[in-house]
Formats: sequence, structure tokens, C-alpha cells
Amino acid sequence: MIIRVKKVFTNKIVLVAQSLQKGMVANMKFTKMQGCGNDYVYVNCFEETINDPNGVAKKVSDRRFGIGSDGLILIKPSEIADFTMHMYNADGSQGKMCGNGIRCVGKYVYDHGMTQKTSLAIETLGGVKYLALIVDGGKVTEVTVDMGEPELDPKLIPIAVEEEQVVNMPITIADREFYITGVSVGNPHAVTFIEDTNSFPIENYGPLFEEHPLFPEKINTEFVQILDRKTVNMRVWERGSAETHACGTGATCSVYAAILNGLTEDEVTVHMLGGDVVIRYDREKNRLFMTGPAVTVFDGEIEL
Amino acid sequence: MIIRVKKVFTNKIVLVAQSLQKGMVANMKFTKMQGCGNDYVYVNCFEETINDPNGVAKKVSDRRFGIGSDGLILIKPSEIADFTMHMYNADGSQGKMCGNGIRCVGKYVYDHGMTQKTSLAIETLGGVKYLALIVDGGKVTEVTVDMGEPELDPKLIPIAVEEEQVVNMPITIADREFYITGVSVGNPHAVTFIEDTNSFPIENYGPLFEEHPLFPEKINTEFVQILDRKTVNMRVWERGSAETHACGTGATCSVYAAILNGLTEDEVTVHMLGGDVVIRYDREKNRLFMTGPAVTVFDGEIEL
Repeated sequence: MIIRVKKVFTNKIVLVAQSLQKGMVANMKFTKMQGCGNDYVYVNCFEETINDPNGVAKKVSDRRFGIGSDGLILIKPSEIADFTMHMYNADGSQGKMCGNGIRCVGKYVYDHGMTQKTSLAIETLGGVKYLALIVDGGKVTEVTVDMGEPELDPKLIPIAVEEEQVVNMPITIADREFYITGVSVGNPHAVTFIEDTNSFPIENYGPLFEEHPLFPEKINTEFVQILDRKTVNMRVWERGSAETHACGTGATCSVYAAILNGLTEDEVTVHMLGGDVVIRYDREKNRLFMTGPAVTVFDGEIEL
Repeated sequence: MIIRVKKVFTNKIVLVAQSLQKGMVANMKFTKMQGCGNDYVYVNCFEETINDPNGVAKKVSDRRFGIGSDGLILIKPSEIADFTMHMYNADGSQGKMCGNGIRCVGKYVYDHGMTQKTSLAIETLGGVKYLALIVDGGKVTEVTVDMGEPELDPKLIPIAVEEEQVVNMPITIADREFYITGVSVGNPHAVTFIEDTNSFPIENYGPLFEEHPLFPEKINTEFVQILDRKTVNMRVWERGSAETHACGTGATCSVYAAILNGLTEDEVTVHMLGGDVVIRYDREKNRLFMTGPAVTVFDGEIEL
């Protein structure tokens, strides 16, 4: 009798050990969220442990064999801010910051009761970022992100020119002359104003901007149509990617470039393929603020 | 005091009524599953009620703003079979049957304890289909589907020719001559054998097959490379769609066409972009059987 019990017990231990070895038993809870169509899998690392975030990001991002997303965002404790956000791209590489993603981090921690504050500091690999949450009916609907100060120095963007700024500078791309304004809020952007974004063949010109010798670290290019002094349309070609639904830093730099060129006021709604954001330039502080939606799509649990 | 209680109670009723009116409060539990990369959102309609399946299919299928899938599959009771499968495409239209999808229905009902049987009859809009479940460790890993009898009559496929069969018939598409064999197992297929599927520019030829006047209801075209008498590579161009990861009826018709042309034995592994299936032709019964994987990706809950 003792032997039988012992055997069953030993079998169980062997089974558990085998499962742990295979690394196949861990179930991970997650929430899929999106901001302007930029979608990530969010995991609360106060409750979940992820040992191989690069591998998990790659696995969960696959849109047919995984959950399907632009990447993975982990929400963790911070010693210098309210929370930490660690982000990983769909290819498993680590990213620094994502303007659409960090809004959803704000919504996640508030909606899940992890904080009652509506002003938050979030630690990222791109520094500490500050959020203001807009709450309606107990849930966050929109978030304002302090996007920091605009950088115009071509050496720091970088753009390979001798001038002190690149504002409305002509550049020939294939058969066509564009005028670009170069701005960075952590990553490089060339903003160009065109007559009509809807009919613009971005797939023809985007790659030629990206690879142009003026941009030693390549470039994100925004094609912007001024609708009125408070509203623009924007399409974006992201370096290393292609056309995307939305780009928070791109929208921010586009509005700053529009202001520099005297085309808009200081608060502008930016229509993108994936949705709208409002960019506000605070002249006194010389800082840019982005307000946009943060949406919970669904909650789930996956076996890793 | 009574008045206060009454007021709170009334407010609650008003809130519930408003929510029901808006139709926004229902949370729907679902399971995302895939077979050879053909992925659907599966809902157990023994527990969930879906009033607008076309709208729900369209919403959940969006890969950024929804769950992300090729469509929605509802599992329901049946009066003439073990279960009913109702499928909806990503555009909200209703489909008849899906060879990759029905395998996952088999896995769902067994893994969730809704049946202990490993031979199942499933009612679909394309008739009752028969499954054999392959179980390992209490879970279904693969499913064999009875795909029925092959149809060669050009009038029934349909293909606009006077001959009684279309077997190895030359057809000129743009600059190139192909040889097609026409087969149906419920939907029309033209199977053509080529030297190398990897390097084949399917995006150039697929649409020209689809629109060719020989095919009054358009056509699904399989480009098949014979590796040996038991193994083939297949790429598929689906009518109304484009190249897809996998096509169960396409794999079935491809193997039958290969047998007709004397190129393979009666049991063949078909490698597709999304995974492998094994097709077996039972000469005595004149029926085709497809065995392939069924995989649960994750469980979730979404607010509709």
C-alpha cells in the first residue's frame, strides 16, 4: 500500500518535472489593447512572470499562430516612477518607447485599480514619461502624454546638412520635389506638406525618403495635408517598417513642423489611418503634448 | 428612507435598461484556434447567445481593432448530427464549410468535455460532415475529415468545356502554358503541376486563372510540386481572396488530381505555407479523407 502511494506520488513529480522542463505549462494572462490601431499585448508583471520576453513577444505577436499584435508591453514596478513599461517589437527586439503604447499603460493601471492617481510617471528605456489620464465613468478613455521638447539640430536628429535647422528645405525624390522640415522627439522625422494625402502614392516615395543619403540613420517620413489651421491629415512611412496606421511621435513632429512653417495654430487634431490624436505645443515650456485614445480590446489567457 | 432605497433601485434599473438598449454590455467568451494557419474565433453557443453573427464576425475578425481572424465559427446543437457548425467570413458573409475550421470544432467539443465520442457528425450548411478525432493525453491533436466524393463533371465543377472530364488539359495563361485538372469537393478547383512552388510568382498567375472565361464561377487554383510519390508542395490562390496559408479542399483536390495523373500513391502529405495535411483516397468507397492539426491558441473574453 505504501509502495503504491509512493509510486503515484513519484509519477506526479516526474510529470510536473517533465512539464517544467518542456516549459509548456505556464499560462499567461494578458490584455490586448490598441491606440489608433497600434496594438500590443499587455501583461501585468506584478502578477505574471516572463522569463524570455523577446521570445514571448515574437510568439504572441504572430497574427495567425499567436495572439496578433505589433509587440508585447510589460507593466512592472519602478523605483523612480509609478510604473515601468518595457516594450518589445513583433520581431522580438526591444523598443524604447511608444506614444500609442504608453497611453494604454496608463489605462491599464488605472482601470485595473493599480493606482488611483490620474497623473502618472512611467519609466521607459527612453526615460521617464508623464501621463495625464482622462477618466469617464470610472474608466480611462483618453490619455495625454508629455512628448518632451522638440529637437531641431540636424546633428542630433540626425540629418546630414551643414545648416542649423532643416525647415522647408527642398529635396528631390525620384521625379518630384518635396520640402522637408526635420524634427526629433527621440526619433528622427522628416515632415513634408502635400496637397492630398488620400491619393498620395506613399509606397513609391516612402522607401526613397528612408534610404536617402541625407539621413544617416534612415528616417520616418510624414506626409501632411493642412485641412485648416486646427486640423491636418497625416500618413506616415516608418523606417524599418512601412506605412503604419499611426505614429505618435510622427504626429507630434508633424504639428511642430506645421507651427514652424506658420501653417497651423498651437493645438491641432491629426487624422491618421488608425484614428485621431490632438497635439498641443506649450510655448512657455517649449514642450509638446499628445492626447489620444486608449482602448481595451479583449482579455485573454494563453499557454506559452 | 424608503424613498432613498427606491431611488437607488430605480437608478439601477435605468442603468441596466440603458446598457441593454445600447447593446454594449454583453461579454462574449471565445477561443481562438487555428488549423494550418487558417484561424477563426470559436464561440460555444450552448453558453453564449449571439444575435448578430454577421456583425460580430466582421468586428472580431479585424486584426487590429478586433480579435483578429479569418472569421467566426459558432458551435451549436443539432437535431440531425452531434453538433452544428455555422461559419462567417471576415467580411461578415456566411460560409458553408471550412476543412481547417471543422477540425478545430472537433477539438473544441472534445477538449471542453461536450462529448466523449471520437467519431462525430457535424451539421454544416454544406451538409453533414464526419470527423475522426485523434487524441493524445486527453486532448485532440489531429482530426480526420471525410471530404466526400470527388466530382470531375465539368458542368458541376463548373468548367466551360464540352469534354466529360478536365484532366491534364492545356490552358494558356499570359505567356505560359499550364496543364490543369478540374476537381470539386463542394467548391471548384483547377490543379496544375509545376517544377518549383517556392519560386513561382503566384501573384502574377493566380488572378488570371481566377478570371479566365473557362471558369464561369471563377476558380481556386492549386500549384503543386511533386516531391516524391507520397509528398507534394502546394500553394493556393483562392477565388475572391488571394494566396492563402492553406486550403483543405484545395489539398484534397490536388492529391486526387495527382493520383488521376499517375503522379502519387493514394496517401500523400501536402506541405502548405501554413502547415501540413495528409490526404488519403479510399478507392473502394471513392471518398477522400483529410487529416490535419487542430490547435487552440488562446481563450479570451471580449465586450461586444
